[in-house]
Parts: sequence; structure tokens; C-alpha cells
Amino acid sequence: MRGAVLHAPGDIRVEDRDDPTIEQPTDAIIRLSASCVCGSDLWPYRGIEDVTGPTPMGHEYVGIVEEVGSAVTTIKPGQFVIGSFFASDNTCEICRAGYQSACIHREYVGAGGAQAELLRVPLADGTLVATPGPASDELVPSLLAASDVLGTGWFGAVAAEVGPGKTVAVVGDGAVGLLAVLAAKELGAERIFAMSRYESRQQLALAYGATDVIAERGADGVAMIKELTDGLGADSVIEAVGTQDSMMQAIRSTRPGGHVGYVGVAHGVTLPGEELFYSHAHLHGGPAPVRRFLPDLIKRITSGSIDPGKVFDLTLPLEDAAEGYRAMDERRAIKTLLRP
Amino acid sequence: MRGAVLHAPGDIRVEDRDDPTIEQPTDAIIRLSASCVCGSDLWPYRGIEDVTGPTPMGHEYVGIVEEVGSAVTTIKPGQFVIGSFFASDNTCEICRAGYQSACIHREYVGAGGAQAELLRVPLADGTLVATPGPASDELVPSLLAASDVLGTGWFGAVAAEVGPGKTVAVVGDGAVGLLAVLAAKELGAERIFAMSRYESRQQLALAYGATDVIAERGADGVAMIKELTDGLGADSVIEAVGTQDSMMQAIRSTRPGGHVGYVGVAHGVTLPGEELFYSHAHLHGGPAPVRRFLPDLIKRITSGSIDPGKVFDLTLPLEDAAEGYRAMDERRAIKTLLRP
Repeated sequence: MRGAVLHAPGDIRVEDRDDPTIEQPTDAIIRLSASCVCGSDLWPYRGIEDVTGPTPMGHEYVGIVEEVGSAVTTIKPGQFVIGSFFASDNTCEICRAGYQSACIHREYVGAGGAQAELLRVPLADGTLVATPGPASDELVPSLLAASDVLGTGWFGAVAAEVGPGKTVAVVGDGAVGLLAVLAAKELGAERIFAMSRYESRQQLALAYGATDVIAERGADGVAMIKELTDGLGADSVIEAVGTQDSMMQAIRSTRPGGHVGYVGVAHGVTLPGEELFYSHAHLHGGPAPVRRFLPDLIKRITSGSIDPGKVFDLTLPLEDAAEGYRAMDERRAIKTLLRP
Repeated sequence: MRGAVLHAPGDIRVEDRDDPTIEQPTDAIIRLSASCVCGSDLWPYRGIEDVTGPTPMGHEYVGIVEEVGSAVTTIKPGQFVIGSFFASDNTCEICRAGYQSACIHREYVGAGGAQAELLRVPLADGTLVATPGPASDELVPSLLAASDVLGTGWFGAVAAEVGPGKTVAVVGDGAVGLLAVLAAKELGAERIFAMSRYESRQQLALAYGATDVIAERGADGVAMIKELTDGLGADSVIEAVGTQDSMMQAIRSTRPGGHVGYVGVAHGVTLPGEELFYSHAHLHGGPAPVRRFLPDLIKRITSGSIDPGKVFDLTLPLEDAAEGYRAMDERRAIKTLLRP
């Protein structure tokens, strides 16, 4: 099969790779209908994370089940399925508490490289969720978004305790941040501040339900949020970047007793304990337990009530993955969808 | 009046100070029935916090109202009252959300020095809570505990989402940690791990409802908690120390999706963002909004259902405050009560 491999920072190649096979009786092999490039793929692409050798890339996927292992009982060949970047048994105590991304048997599905034609998914019964029927082509982008960026933005909103009547700020205008805006809207937020300085992203944020766009960053961004909230700060702040600056901006934008939901993969972040202590903020986040939200998100997508697929503003054949990375790196695209 | 003043690390003196007077029409002056030495008083006493000049000490207080300002309407002279270390209006949006220690008008009551005969309490109507009638001498220690250490331990338990059926670990065996054990028990925890290596504190923790005592610290303490929880960690962990080691011990003792409630005043703490991200822990804490809990705590104390006053294992006349500090510094006493 063909698949994208990162050889060094900036060096993505689509090349021949071995077809994946069933390795464990709980595995499934799926034929990908679509995959995509994640903001977190840019960390190694930009050399901020080490690239230790040729690395198959991609961890977001939707597709049709091709084959299942002998112990797989609920997932069947022919089903259109969605899964998350972490495989989970969905039965352990941690999964039952809703933290499938910390499942005691979790495996990183992305190790197999989802920017490809085929993908091995471990723990298929626990990991994959089938759509009610075949997925129409036009729904594929939205269903693909559910695999990570929608599920992650949704978790950010849930971790930030977004709910009816709440004032919400979203730090980060990548696909996760934009879909956190959508999640906040769906969860009933009264006011949603999208922090962005890019016109196309601002527009999508507004389309997804943002009530205000804030172009200021850092201390100026915090000051603007305070100004718009009687000096108190937002009830709920979703952090969708993962840098020191964005985390501090999120914490400082939160009112005492408010909640920060952080889903940007942390890189080089250290939180000052004293400031955190006196902030009275709640902090929660981490790799999103997307699996918790998939059944609900699939329902919202197939019923047409949400359209998270709009975050894909560039669609390319898998063979052109390198251009897809470049476009995101240069901020020419919010998110690139790849068609095998 | 007489009052305790810290002149330099280790140098506490009880000396003549000016009687406090009504400065704002919302003030009250109370005649203290008892005061005490707090674990947090030991930070400057030990020189870990700077002592910039002679500092009146003490921020925990119960007593009888002597005089009120012209704008005070609900608090009356003659009432026996308890307040918290932060004065609060108890009417602003932050107070109404239960974060009186972050009230937009908050003032630090301890600035007046509660280890004394008299104390000025700002925002008296919002800050003070009167007992149903005069307080019997034997209830004074428990009511005094409600002013800070009980309210703080209680907030730690609430911030850690302690509830029925939960497994709880408490890091720290000072008065706050011990009363966090009591709070966890009252809030319905099923299993309570008290982390302590001091015999007298272990005994009090067991009396307050701890089901297990863990003498190991740091990585060994974390390993022990994991061993006792099927490798998962505790549901709720209360951090009642405030150091880097204790915070990391708390975070690492928490299962994915579990809650850390941190109430030890943070000193020199920096939290590693990546580890926090992958821990999936919830974090919440800060200076306890004791005022939120006072009416409930007073009811539990006056009805005899809890006895938090047991944390005072040394009672001295105010004049002997220096010995009270020494005894706590040298861990000869858990907590010193001072009688003016």
C-alpha cells in the first residue's frame, strides 16, 4: 500500500509500505476512506519534536472494515467505522469512567500511520464505532473530524465545564480550537470568545457560533477578556495550542472558580504553582477520550445538526501529502484532508 | 492590647500593640476567645517567606463582637462569631459562586494579627458567621478550627470531588491534612489513605476516619497508593503541604480522570505541563473559600457530630506564643491554640 512517512523535519514522502495484517485476535484492518494532517503532526514536521527515524504518520481515520481478528465480535467487515488515536478496550475501570485515552490497555493507533490506504486498529470492538449505515461522501469529512479534532475540541469544552449560560473563551484557532467553538455552542454557551487573528479562521469561528472575535494575544488578549466580563474573566476557557504562552493566557483569562480545559498537546510548558494556587482556576485536560463522545458526535453529524467537516479547507490525494503539510505549516490551510 | 509580632525568622514576641478601631463603617472589632498558630505561619517563621519588618501574626479567630461600624446590619455586639482569613462581601458574583476567598472586595484579615486580644474584621456582615448562641468553652477549639484548618481541609476534599464510594488519599499530616481526612469521612469516602510517618498524627488520622496509614513518601508513597488501588491511583487526592514534592506526589497518586484538591500554600512549585497533560488529573485548589462552608461546619460542630478541635494538642496563654511556634516548628505539636 501507499502511505506517508516523515523522514526528517520538513521531509514527508508518500511511499510503498507493507500492508498491515491482523497481529492480535482483537485487531481489525480498515481501508481508509479519508485521513488527514493534524496540528500535532506539525510538531515533529517542524522539528520541535525529535524525528528519530522514518515514521509513518497520521492518527485520524474513517473507513470500511476489511478484516477482523478471531476475537472481534461486534465490529464486522463492511461496516463504515470511526475510531480515535488511542485504541481502548472500553471495558476497564478507567474506560468506564470515560477516560478511554488512558485505558489500561491503550495502544497508540497512529503508530501504524493512518495517512495511508490501510490501517491496523487494535482492540477493534472497544475502539471503533460504526455509523448506522454506509457514509455518504459528503459526510466523510465531518465523520473524519470526529476521529480527533472534533472529539478533542468537544473534550476541551466538557473539561472546561461549558454549559448553558456560560461565558467561554477559546485560545487557539486551529481545527481543534474552531471545533471547540462549535462544541461550546452545542453545549449551550451564552457567549463565546474566539481568539484569532486570521480572517478565514475568524469567519469559521463566527459560523460555528462565536459571538466575539478577539485578535489580541497574551496580556492584551487577557485584558480584552477581562474587559468583556466585568473584570472577572470567562467561566470556561478552552486551551487548544499547547505552548507556555497559550496555557498562561488560558489560566489568566479564567475567573476565580472557573474552568480551564486544555487539549493542546503540551510542549515545553511549566506552570507556576503560586500563580495557579491564587488563580482559583480548575484545570483539566490531556489527550481527549474521543471514544467517550463518538456515539453522540456521530448522531449529531448524521442528523445534520453539526458540520465539523468545514475545518478541512484543503483536500488532496494522499500522494500529495507533502503539500498538505506545507500548506498547514505555512497557515495557508486550517486542515488538510487526504484521499487515498 | 497584647499581640504576637514576628520580628525576624524564629523571633516571635508578644508585645503591646495599639487596640484596633473601626476604620470603615463595614468593620467589626471582636474580642478573641482564642487564636492559634497556622502551618502557614511557619513559612516566614522559618525564613522561607521573607520577613520585611515587624509583622503582627495570626489569621484564625473566634470571639465576641465588641463593636460594629455604622453600616453593619446583621452582626451585633455580643454575638460569638467565626470568620475566615479573607474578608469578603459575600454578595459579589465571585462570592455567590462560592469563591469568597477571591471576592472582588476581599481583604486579608490576618493583616491585623489575630494572635492578639482584639481584631478588626473588615466587611463584617459578609465575613462573620455567628453561632446559634454563646459558645461553650469546650466547643471553642472546634469552632476555632473551622476558621481555617477545618474549612481548608474541607475545601481540599470538595475540590478533590470526594464523595460516597470514593478512594481518597491525603498528602500532608498537619492540621489541614488531618481535617481533610475528617472531611473525606464526613463526605462519604469509602477508603481514606492518610500519608504520615508520625505516630501521634497517624493515630488522629485513624480517629478521624482514615482506613489506611501510609508512611512511605515520594515515589514509594505513590507506589503504595497504586498497589492499594489495583494500579490505578486514588479517585481523589488532597494535597495539604504546598511543596514541589507533595504536589507531584499528589498528582502521581491520582488515577486518570481523578481529582487533586490542593490547599497547601504553594511555595516554589512548578508543574511540568507534559506530565500534567498525560496524567488526565483534574486540578483545583487555592486559598480555601472557608466562608462557603462555615454555616454547615458550625452546625456539624455545635451538634457534636464532628470534633475538629482535637488537632490542638497544645494550649498556651497568648503570652507564650513563642513556645507555641517552636513546638510546631519542631513537630512537638500538631497545632497550638493560644488563649488571650
